[in-house]
Amino acid sequence: MQQQKISSKQIADMESRYRARLINSLSGFKSANMVATVDAEGQPNLAIVSSVIHLGSNPPLLGFISRPNSVQRHTLENILQVGAFTLNSVEADFASLAHQTSARYPKHQSEFEAVGLTPQFDNEFAAPFVLESSVKIALSLKEHQTIRSNNTEMVIGQIEAIHLPREIVQPDGYLDIEGMEWVTISGLDSYHVTQRLFRLEYAKPDKALVPLSTNGEQSEWPSEPDKLS
Amino acid sequence: MQQQKISSKQIADMESRYRARLINSLSGFKSANMVATVDAEGQPNLAIVSSVIHLGSNPPLLGFISRPNSVQRHTLENILQVGAFTLNSVEADFASLAHQTSARYPKHQSEFEAVGLTPQFDNEFAAPFVLESSVKIALSLKEHQTIRSNNTEMVIGQIEAIHLPREIVQPDGYLDIEGMEWVTISGLDSYHVTQRLFRLEYAKPDKALVPLSTNGEQSEWPSEPDKLS
Repeated sequence: MQQQKISSKQIADMESRYRARLINSLSGFKSANMVATVDAEGQPNLAIVSSVIHLGSNPPLLGFISRPNSVQRHTLENILQVGAFTLNSVEADFASLAHQTSARYPKHQSEFEAVGLTPQFDNEFAAPFVLESSVKIALSLKEHQTIRSNNTEMVIGQIEAIHLPREIVQPDGYLDIEGMEWVTISGLDSYHVTQRLFRLEYAKPDKALVPLSTNGEQSEWPSEPDKLS
Repeated sequence: MQQQKISSKQIADMESRYRARLINSLSGFKSANMVATVDAEGQPNLAIVSSVIHLGSNPPLLGFISRPNSVQRHTLENILQVGAFTLNSVEADFASLAHQTSARYPKHQSEFEAVGLTPQFDNEFAAPFVLESSVKIALSLKEHQTIRSNNTEMVIGQIEAIHLPREIVQPDGYLDIEGMEWVTISGLDSYHVTQRLFRLEYAKPDKALVPLSTNGEQSEWPSEPDKLS
């Protein structure tokens, strides 16, 4: 493979959409979720997000990035007004509809209706869920912070409830999100399903190690047999 | 599929490792990178991170989460001391070695040596790269913020240089990170390769839509033919 070096000057000089595609590919594979909200008048809003990250288990916290002047602006306004939102899994059979929520619909138009996904209201929670999503998470707004470097907002929610298919919950608590075809995103627009290589044990310093295989073949250590199959 | 509801009370009452596995699975698939640093004495440190996210393209910014009292503590200390770090892709053939960097090695021991990965120094940059990684990114510390809800740190770096294989760069700037077998992580310990479904065009509100296919088959719209194949 021929290595190429790209300097900060070259990045700055790139055509803006080319740069956006390249830099958006650099973090690796991204999570695929839809954030669903309502405004104070009950108007629902739905937006795909590829920046949801795990922040902690106790308390259970998830965060995502809301960009200034993006289509997610309505989402952020709603969350600040209502104090609640939901995150909903994006699966292979409706990934293209989830992608379509990223279009700049006017505020009065529900993305649910526009793309053909179904809002599902639970009387106990202010924000709607996405009926088609297997995993649906209710969150209350816990904190939000402005990232000064580029004025994006980090929105942090605490998990209030989880709705999921019983059969994806494994005996040790791990969720088989591959089996339900939860997709992953690369760059701005590429959608992928996955194939498990292995689950690995909790790493400890005193474990025996064998050297990295240098021929590109699967290293034999410590690839455990897949505990789920 | 039988839906199950898990309440916040049930989450709080879970056994702690079970809860960690479950909540860590909830955000969807995660990025897989190794962050490499040196301390002021030049001692290298390497840690796998699954929380790297894209923050912006112009300026080009990436962030990741550093947890308090975790093995990434040495990483954070080094970044604050030296002001620089690198992010390096985790690929299928050395994913198990990357995972092993999460063991709690003492500070004087280099995780590079312990797991069998190779530090690669570039005279122009303070922090080492991982020789085995196809995509290597040099970043300068731009900003860091404490997330008050659980005292984790968000570390934000600006991209100073990118090293990558020329053949993964597509004509429109998108990187074919699937072709190089960059892995994705689910939960705490599961590693996956990917299979592309499609790339989708930039979404616009006035596009024609067909309803969601309800039988679980691939929706015909707007799944464009894969532009890369």
